[in-house]
Amino acid sequence: MLRVALAMVPEVRQLLTEDPAQLSDLLDEIHDEDLADLIGLLDDAEAAKVLMALKAEEAAPIFERLDGETQEALVEQMGIESIAPIVSEMAADDRTDLIEALPDQVSGTLLSTLEKVDPEAAAEVEELAKWPEDSAGGLMTTDYVSVGIHLKVADVIERIRAVGEDAETIYYVYIVSDRGHLIGVVSLRDLLLASPSERLADVMTENVFAVSPETDQEEVARTMAKYDFNALPVLSADRKLLGVITVDDVMDVLTEEQSEDMQRLGAVGPIEDSYFKTSFWTFIQKRAPWLAVLFVGEFMTGEVLRRFEHDLEAVATLAYYVPLLISTGGNSGSQSSSLIIRGLAVGDLRVGDWASVLVRELGQAVVLGLILSAIGMLRVWLWGDGTGFVLTIGATLMAIVLMGCTVGAMLPLLLRRIGLDPATSSTPFIASLVDVLGILLYFTIARLFLSDLLAQAGAGG
Amino acid sequence: MLRVALAMVPEVRQLLTEDPAQLSDLLDEIHDEDLADLIGLLDDAEAAKVLMALKAEEAAPIFERLDGETQEALVEQMGIESIAPIVSEMAADDRTDLIEALPDQVSGTLLSTLEKVDPEAAAEVEELAKWPEDSAGGLMTTDYVSVGIHLKVADVIERIRAVGEDAETIYYVYIVSDRGHLIGVVSLRDLLLASPSERLADVMTENVFAVSPETDQEEVARTMAKYDFNALPVLSADRKLLGVITVDDVMDVLTEEQSEDMQRLGAVGPIEDSYFKTSFWTFIQKRAPWLAVLFVGEFMTGEVLRRFEHDLEAVATLAYYVPLLISTGGNSGSQSSSLIIRGLAVGDLRVGDWASVLVRELGQAVVLGLILSAIGMLRVWLWGDGTGFVLTIGATLMAIVLMGCTVGAMLPLLLRRIGLDPATSSTPFIASLVDVLGILLYFTIARLFLSDLLAQAGAGG
Repeated sequence: MLRVALAMVPEVRQLLTEDPAQLSDLLDEIHDEDLADLIGLLDDAEAAKVLMALKAEEAAPIFERLDGETQEALVEQMGIESIAPIVSEMAADDRTDLIEALPDQVSGTLLSTLEKVDPEAAAEVEELAKWPEDSAGGLMTTDYVSVGIHLKVADVIERIRAVGEDAETIYYVYIVSDRGHLIGVVSLRDLLLASPSERLADVMTENVFAVSPETDQEEVARTMAKYDFNALPVLSADRKLLGVITVDDVMDVLTEEQSEDMQRLGAVGPIEDSYFKTSFWTFIQKRAPWLAVLFVGEFMTGEVLRRFEHDLEAVATLAYYVPLLISTGGNSGSQSSSLIIRGLAVGDLRVGDWASVLVRELGQAVVLGLILSAIGMLRVWLWGDGTGFVLTIGATLMAIVLMGCTVGAMLPLLLRRIGLDPATSSTPFIASLVDVLGILLYFTIARLFLSDLLAQAGAGG
Repeated sequence: MLRVALAMVPEVRQLLTEDPAQLSDLLDEIHDEDLADLIGLLDDAEAAKVLMALKAEEAAPIFERLDGETQEALVEQMGIESIAPIVSEMAADDRTDLIEALPDQVSGTLLSTLEKVDPEAAAEVEELAKWPEDSAGGLMTTDYVSVGIHLKVADVIERIRAVGEDAETIYYVYIVSDRGHLIGVVSLRDLLLASPSERLADVMTENVFAVSPETDQEEVARTMAKYDFNALPVLSADRKLLGVITVDDVMDVLTEEQSEDMQRLGAVGPIEDSYFKTSFWTFIQKRAPWLAVLFVGEFMTGEVLRRFEHDLEAVATLAYYVPLLISTGGNSGSQSSSLIIRGLAVGDLRVGDWASVLVRELGQAVVLGLILSAIGMLRVWLWGDGTGFVLTIGATLMAIVLMGCTVGAMLPLLLRRIGLDPATSSTPFIASLVDVLGILLYFTIARLFLSDLLAQAGAGG
C-alpha cells in the first residue's frame, strides 16, 4: 500500500531543497492517505517542511491521517504557532483525539492558542472531549448540516451549498427544532430526487435511528453495518442532536475491534499500532502477562499428575497419551469458544441462550467424540498397547471432547455474564481448565479399564 | 437486534388474516433490515403472503436482505411468476447472488422469465455472474450513474435527478468515454459545491482509484477502509468501467472475512450463517475434519515420547512437566502467529519482511523466555524435584519459547508464500510441530542436566 508514497519520496526531497513553493502543485492530485504515508517516510524535519509549504486546509486532511506518535513529533517540531491553523482545519473528531493524546502541557497551550485563532474549533473540542474515546461520543463529529423544519427542498439544497464545505458529510441533513432537538433526517439523495418546491417536512423521515453518546463503538459499527447507514446521529437523553458518526470512522472501528479480538484469542493484549510501528517493549508488555498467567495456570497439570504418581511409575505407557489427550480437549474447546465468542461479538447470540447453546454443543460433541474415538482406538491397537489401553483411550476421548465443548462454550457466556470480555478472558481459563480436567478424566478412566495392569505392576514393582 | 421485528409479529399475523391490504401502510415506516428480520420470524407461507401484499419495489429491498436459505424457500413458495417482478427490482449484485445460489433448474426458469419481464435486469445478471463471488466483480453493481464529459455541472445534477432512482449510489458520478472507458469521477458533494455553470471536466478528478474485477474482496474492503472511499469503480484491463462497489457491501465483507479468520484460528472451517441458523451437520462438517487432522498430527507426540521410554521409566517425574512445557510452547507460538496472521490480513506486513519479523520475534522470545524461566525454576525448586530439574526446566523453557515464537511467526509467512491461507493452515501445523519439537527439546536437555539421575535410576532399575 506504500507504493505511491515510496515512489514520491525522492522528488519531494528534491523540491524541498530546491523549490518548496512547487510542492503544493505536485501533491494536489495525490490522495491524502498516500500523502500521510509519504509524511511517515520522511524524517520529522522534512515532514514539518512539507506541511508548512501547504495551505492549512491542504495540510489538515493529511495531518489527520497520521498516527498518534508522528502527530506528536510534528507538533513539537513545528511549534504551536505553526500547527494551530492546521489543527483548526482538522475534522472536529480528529482534532479532539489529537489534543487528548498530547501531553497535558502541550495540549493546554495548543487549546488556548486555538481559542484565539478559531474559538469555534476550540469549543467543539471541549464538547467532544467529554466522551470516552471508544464510545459513540468519541467517534462523532459536530461538523454536520442541520436546518430548521420550515424550509422547502430547494432552500435545503442551497443551505448545503453554503455550509457544505466544512461539513464532514453532506449526504444527510438533520432537521432540528429551535431548542436543538432532532425532528427528522433527509438524505441528499431524497432531496435531489424530490421536487425543489416540496416542503422539507414532506420528504424527511421522522423515525430516525440514533444512538446515545455512551453507546460502545463496536455496537455503533455493527448497527451501521447491519442497516447500511452512511451516517448515524448521536442524541442526548432528551433527544438533543449532539453529533453525527460517519461511515469512514466506523470502518476503522470494525477493523480495530477485530484486530483486538484476534489478538485476545491469541492471548496478546490489544495492540493499537501496526506490527512494525509497535515498539519492542510494548510487545513484551502485551505478551508477558498473558504468557505468565497461562504458565502459572498450567502448574495445575503438574499437581494433578503427581497425584497419579504411582500409576505413572507402574505403567509408563500412560504418559505417552497425555499430550494427545489434553491437546484434543483443548482443540474441541477452542472450536466451541471461537464460535461462541464470535457469536457474542456479532450479536448472533446472548447469554440467555446458554441452554440451547449447551444442547447444541453436547450434540456435536457426541458425534465429534465418536469420530475421534474410532480413529484413536485404531491407532492404540496398531501401537500394540493392549485392549485395556484401546478401551481407556476410546472412553477418555469421548469424555474429553464432551468436556472440552462444554467448557469452551459455557465459559465465554459465564464471563460475559459477570461483566468480563469473553475474548480476553476465555483463553487462559479454558486452556488450564481443559488440561487439568482432561488429565483427571484420563487417569480415572484408566483405573477402570487398566485395573489389572496397574495392580499387577504395582505388586511387581 | 430483533426487538423491532419480534414486537411486530402478532400485528402482522392479524393483518394477514383480516386485512392484507393494510400491510403496506403498516410496514412503510419500518427499516427494510427490520422487515427482513420479521420475514425470518414468520413461516414460509406467511412470509410469502407479506411479500405478495407489497409492491415489487417495496418487497425487493426486504427480499435482498434475507439469508440464502430463506430466499430459496420463498422462491419455491411464491413461484417463479410472483417472484420475478421482485427479483427484477433487486440491486443487480444481490439479484446475481440469488440466481447463482438457486438450484440450476430453478435459476434457469427464473432467468428466462426475467428476460421477458425485464431484459436489462437479466443482462446485468449475465454480466455480473462472470466473476467469482468473493472478488471485486462479485461485489460490484452495475446500477451506477455515468455521464459523458461534455456536460456542465447543472446538467449532471439534472441527470442524477432523472436516473438516480434506480442507482445504488448517486454520491459519485462516473465520467466515461463513448467507448465505455473511465475518464474521471466526481462526487455529488463537489458537484453541489461547484457553480452550476462550471464544466464537468473542470470539477472531476482524473486520477481515479480503481480495482480489477479479479481483486480479492478483502483487499477491496481494506482499500476502501484505508482511503475512506464510499464507492470504488471496477475496471477491465483496458480501463472500461464494469461496475461500482459501494461501502455498505464492503462493511459486510469486513465482518464476514473477520468471522472466517477467527473461526479458522479456532480450527473451524468458515461458517456463513449465524450460530443458530447453522445446521447441526454443517457444524460437524466444519469441525470434524480439522479436529481429526489435529488429532492425527498429535499422534507424533506419542511416537516421540516412546523414544524416551527408558528415561520416563527411570525418572517418572519427567512426565509431570510435559503438559506445562508443551502448552507454553503452544502459547508463545499462538501469540506470534496471531500477530503475524493479523498483520498479513490487514496489510501491515508482507512475506518479504520475514527476516525483520524473525529478528523481532527472537528478541521478544529471549525476554519472554527469561521471565518464564525465572518463574518456572522457582516453582520446580518449591516442588523439591532437585537442582537437576530446576536447571532442566529453566533451560527447556528458554528453548521452547524461542522455538514457539519462531515457528509461530515463520509458518504463516511460509504458508502465504506457497499460496495457502495462513489463517486456515497455521493452527494445525503450529500445534503439532510445537508440541513435538517441545518434547524433543525437553528430553534432550534433560539428558544433559539429569544424566546422573538417569544413569543411577537406570542402574538401580
